[in-house]
Amino acid sequence: MMDFLSQCRAIVGDAGVLDAEADMAPFLTDWRGRFTGKALAVLRPGSVEQVAALVRACAEHRVALVPQGGNTGLVLGSVPDASGAQVVLSLARLNRVRQIDPVNRTMTVDAGCILQQIQEAAAAEGCLFPLSLAAEGSCTIGGNLSTNAGGTAVLRYGNTRELCLGLEVVTPQGEIWSGLRGLRKDNTGYDLRDLFIGAEGTLGIITGAVLKLYPQPKASITALAALPSPAHAQQLLVLMQDHCGASLTGFELMSRFCLDLVARQFPQLPKPFAEPYAQYVLLELSSSESEAHAVGLLEHAIGAALERGVIQDAVVASSVAQSAGLWQLREHIPLAQAKAGKNIKHDISLPVSRIADFIAATGPRLEAAFPGCQLVCFGHLGDGNLHYNVAPPAGISNEDFLVNQDKVNRVVHDSVVAFGGSISAEHGIGALKRDELAHYKSPVELNMMRAIKAALDPLGIMNPGKIL
Amino acid sequence: MMDFLSQCRAIVGDAGVLDAEADMAPFLTDWRGRFTGKALAVLRPGSVEQVAALVRACAEHRVALVPQGGNTGLVLGSVPDASGAQVVLSLARLNRVRQIDPVNRTMTVDAGCILQQIQEAAAAEGCLFPLSLAAEGSCTIGGNLSTNAGGTAVLRYGNTRELCLGLEVVTPQGEIWSGLRGLRKDNTGYDLRDLFIGAEGTLGIITGAVLKLYPQPKASITALAALPSPAHAQQLLVLMQDHCGASLTGFELMSRFCLDLVARQFPQLPKPFAEPYAQYVLLELSSSESEAHAVGLLEHAIGAALERGVIQDAVVASSVAQSAGLWQLREHIPLAQAKAGKNIKHDISLPVSRIADFIAATGPRLEAAFPGCQLVCFGHLGDGNLHYNVAPPAGISNEDFLVNQDKVNRVVHDSVVAFGGSISAEHGIGALKRDELAHYKSPVELNMMRAIKAALDPLGIMNPGKIL
Repeated sequence: MMDFLSQCRAIVGDAGVLDAEADMAPFLTDWRGRFTGKALAVLRPGSVEQVAALVRACAEHRVALVPQGGNTGLVLGSVPDASGAQVVLSLARLNRVRQIDPVNRTMTVDAGCILQQIQEAAAAEGCLFPLSLAAEGSCTIGGNLSTNAGGTAVLRYGNTRELCLGLEVVTPQGEIWSGLRGLRKDNTGYDLRDLFIGAEGTLGIITGAVLKLYPQPKASITALAALPSPAHAQQLLVLMQDHCGASLTGFELMSRFCLDLVARQFPQLPKPFAEPYAQYVLLELSSSESEAHAVGLLEHAIGAALERGVIQDAVVASSVAQSAGLWQLREHIPLAQAKAGKNIKHDISLPVSRIADFIAATGPRLEAAFPGCQLVCFGHLGDGNLHYNVAPPAGISNEDFLVNQDKVNRVVHDSVVAFGGSISAEHGIGALKRDELAHYKSPVELNMMRAIKAALDPLGIMNPGKIL
Repeated sequence: MMDFLSQCRAIVGDAGVLDAEADMAPFLTDWRGRFTGKALAVLRPGSVEQVAALVRACAEHRVALVPQGGNTGLVLGSVPDASGAQVVLSLARLNRVRQIDPVNRTMTVDAGCILQQIQEAAAAEGCLFPLSLAAEGSCTIGGNLSTNAGGTAVLRYGNTRELCLGLEVVTPQGEIWSGLRGLRKDNTGYDLRDLFIGAEGTLGIITGAVLKLYPQPKASITALAALPSPAHAQQLLVLMQDHCGASLTGFELMSRFCLDLVARQFPQLPKPFAEPYAQYVLLELSSSESEAHAVGLLEHAIGAALERGVIQDAVVASSVAQSAGLWQLREHIPLAQAKAGKNIKHDISLPVSRIADFIAATGPRLEAAFPGCQLVCFGHLGDGNLHYNVAPPAGISNEDFLVNQDKVNRVVHDSVVAFGGSISAEHGIGALKRDELAHYKSPVELNMMRAIKAALDPLGIMNPGKIL
């Protein structure tokens, strides 16, 4: 294989090809530390043309490649397999903001730009790039696009898919497709953009994108509502949207178990209510007008919810610090889980109208199969997206419980599918959920996906073993 | 070919197969009356299963089929060619609203539902289905999806693509793909939904869809602003969005020439200003709160625009009737054009920031090539979408001018592409713009489209001659 690596070095220089164990190590283990692969080399191109030349070299030598951004994915989509025959192609050096157009409200960026860097560059022009998620300090937009990442602003602004107008892609043949269009309307043939978005690098390598920007809201305000059940949370969502329309920018469900866990693991965080409630909803309202408008709108809607018995109590943040404190409760749930030990995670989505029924039906099924197991159920209820995690019964070790992972997945995912939901809401499929995908998707859908994969990547060199 | 038609009759009954000239006629001529094709038969299935069985018969006999909804398309996408060898497959009998879920804010419909029927069914549940366009009384949602239709609400709610969560599709093999998911987040493999949306029936037949619904706004208010130039209209858009955010639901540019044309052809319509201005923008604001809120927000923004010299004058409608009158001015432009005679139409889009430069550059190029030609330039400026139509010079007949169509197209489309725009914003490609697509798209992009077409429809029976 020296021929291949020599060719790569001729393209990107010696510094652009890492093949020493120590140099490659950070690129080979997934973010959750669950799997470490092997690689022939890690390639670090510095331009789109170098990406294209490297892909041509891979095609010539039939070397499979794994595109990688910030390597913060949760489904083993951006790490190589154990064979040692694959190369990692890191987009990290492609990290320029190419252009910002505040009148068109678009921004053209390299795929390797860190999400936070993009948010900050937009803000510097008085604009908002709304994508926001826990890994924003280290994930890249290329990874966000390739996994169609979600996050906390989807309710108002959509997933990454809805925030992208155009793409630049290196095809599996090593050609460059320049689809960097900044257009709100463009009906000229098949929607290749959306085919590459969410394809997890299996159809080509995203090297650049035109992103949508929005006006910065003038003010945001946060509240925490207490409710007796998930069914009440569904009602609250309808009520809030009817009252507030697009001003409702956040709607996060958290069970009592979640907030109790946070309180145990992070006792310094605020405790908004003196007594516990069964469920909580974190609400965020944003106004394009003023803080007074946001406060008035929120208080009016909360008043209506209290009056109709949809919520039992609520606290409205009266300062930026208080807003941040309420969001910290939400953001500390995954951290509190990690401190408490490993659990079996599910990133699922459902029709919003079926969430309460799903929760009511699935808990007893898990309890019957795994008596005493503990449910950590929270998430972006406004998008129908739950993080439905199953922790060991008290007194059972993580190791003893995690052997049940496949069985737990089957119970949860069977229930998700029965309620019309999806087994991967915002994390993607990667290698982790590949078998689950094959289990649940219809043959018609799988066959169409395979036909597209074979048509665009006939050599099968683009991130093989992921998705399909 | 009797074998084939007998097979079709066995599937849908005699009444479902039209092959008499007179019966077929309404299905063979396009909406603008520019082309009349021939057909072996018109097939009218009454169920998804019948659609699938008909497609299997077509595949078996290698008969090409043209899916048709309301046949209101503008690019010859839904009429058969002149060979007489194709069949039209009408979706008109599949016209049930299958389900409305006001909590999930979704609606599941047959592809043959008329757009207005869908709007009304949503409104009856207190919800808004925002897609709105001139043909809404006769176009079908299947056609809207297959052409990714735009219309007047795109600024706030997006194109048809953004309003669809799931699809049911009959594949070119006559299988049924049940992708009727009502999920805001679903990252499980390739985005087949968006591949079929905008594919104009060349990859499969959309038979059903899950659509997004929104809360009904409590109030809408309309205004007409007068401006010295398109550049001022760009500035006004930025200002309005900064002030009003998502409450800005309409932003339509019209030149003086357009409104003069309307005034000549429809003298009974309102004349909002005593003196003429170079450009006009129709503004629409919607509020989820109240009419008072909408009025206050609009007046505040208009005040700011006047103060900064972005606009010269404005009238705000003070009643529903006055709002309707202002919208009529906009809606009567195409009708006034039709009364004044034929012209050469372009449905183009540009980055919003390039519209003024495009208009400034393109007019002189046309004037140089076709002295005295008249520009009817209006459209959805908020989406970067112009209807840029070229009418004959005074004293030149339509017939004499229309022979220049290809040359006019070349001047306009060359300019569009030079400014980073698209030659088809919201109407699609069909047969009409197929050669233009081949002329302007890069070989990389065309090759990917052809590979996908060949992979999904290897027999080439799905609406051949359209797009590719």
